[in-house]
Amino acid sequence: MKDKIMQTSIQLFGKKGFTETSVQDIVNEIGVTKGTFYYYFTSKDELLAMIHYEFINNILDKQEEVLNNPNIDSKEKLDQIVKVLTYEIKHSAQSARIFFREMRHISEEHLAKISPKRHQFRKNLEKLVTDGMANGEFQEHVRPDILSYAILGITNWSYFWYDPSGPIKEKELAEGYVEFILKGLLK
Amino acid sequence: MKDKIMQTSIQLFGKKGFTETSVQDIVNEIGVTKGTFYYYFTSKDELLAMIHYEFINNILDKQEEVLNNPNIDSKEKLDQIVKVLTYEIKHSAQSARIFFREMRHISEEHLAKISPKRHQFRKNLEKLVTDGMANGEFQEHVRPDILSYAILGITNWSYFWYDPSGPIKEKELAEGYVEFILKGLLK
Repeated sequence: MKDKIMQTSIQLFGKKGFTETSVQDIVNEIGVTKGTFYYYFTSKDELLAMIHYEFINNILDKQEEVLNNPNIDSKEKLDQIVKVLTYEIKHSAQSARIFFREMRHISEEHLAKISPKRHQFRKNLEKLVTDGMANGEFQEHVRPDILSYAILGITNWSYFWYDPSGPIKEKELAEGYVEFILKGLLK
Repeated sequence: MKDKIMQTSIQLFGKKGFTETSVQDIVNEIGVTKGTFYYYFTSKDELLAMIHYEFINNILDKQEEVLNNPNIDSKEKLDQIVKVLTYEIKHSAQSARIFFREMRHISEEHLAKISPKRHQFRKNLEKLVTDGMANGEFQEHVRPDILSYAILGITNWSYFWYDPSGPIKEKELAEGYVEFILKGLLK
């Protein structure tokens, strides 16, 4: 039921907006009482925080699984992480967009659980770049923090424009990103 | 006065949110009457649309000035466009973020003026990449549309994380982006 409430809310927040969607709207949609909602969540704010917490926790787990694989080099790790992020769009674009839009509505207390996870994801990427420089795979031309933000910008921006049912296939998008990140534009 | 209303609203929308800010709040902040507001704007929705229209129109003008310069190659055009976008953050981050967050509140009628400008900006970038491939400056490894979105992702994402008063100077950020976009990570 908890998951059902979260999934239904993602749809409603996406369609009507967070502020405009009431707890009553959510429970009406599922056909349960407000009591059921408050059994799982103390507030709409907590629900919003949980939606994003699950999203970030999930991709952080997948990222760390890739990073902890001792059998692949930095280039291959980067390749796999970009693919994790790109393939996640189909399932999580709505909840990611809601997070970026409604972050203001999340209390300090709830943000305090989410922000370290987001920070960790970005720092892991920075470390991957730094390691790749140290082991001679990557150029040392730009600050690793700037590079980590640039890579995240490419993948995160997809959540705003990319339509997995459109003309660009997920595989082509992910492979194009990796190619561009590794080789750049210049001949 | 029109500009003053727009600037004040950007601050208020950023602080309190678009839905939560009333026309009364805006005119109170400036010390004028609602009549003054409605002399310039038919609604808060129109005001929000105008804020973004001015932003996108301004960077589109600057982009086209660079693209129409016959004396520089594709690499140099890309360099200058990335710098236009990065240097704009200090002045426009707040209004860009508000746009992304509140887009849902902009009517079809107003979006119809903004969307073609946004589309044009992205298409111009795609054409720059295509031209650079045709003249032999850029590799033909990835679809130009994917590349244009990737480049926009890097710069647009800065509007969400970059703090011009923080440790990374604007010049270092813009030059780092250009270096990465042109050369990629791999040695």
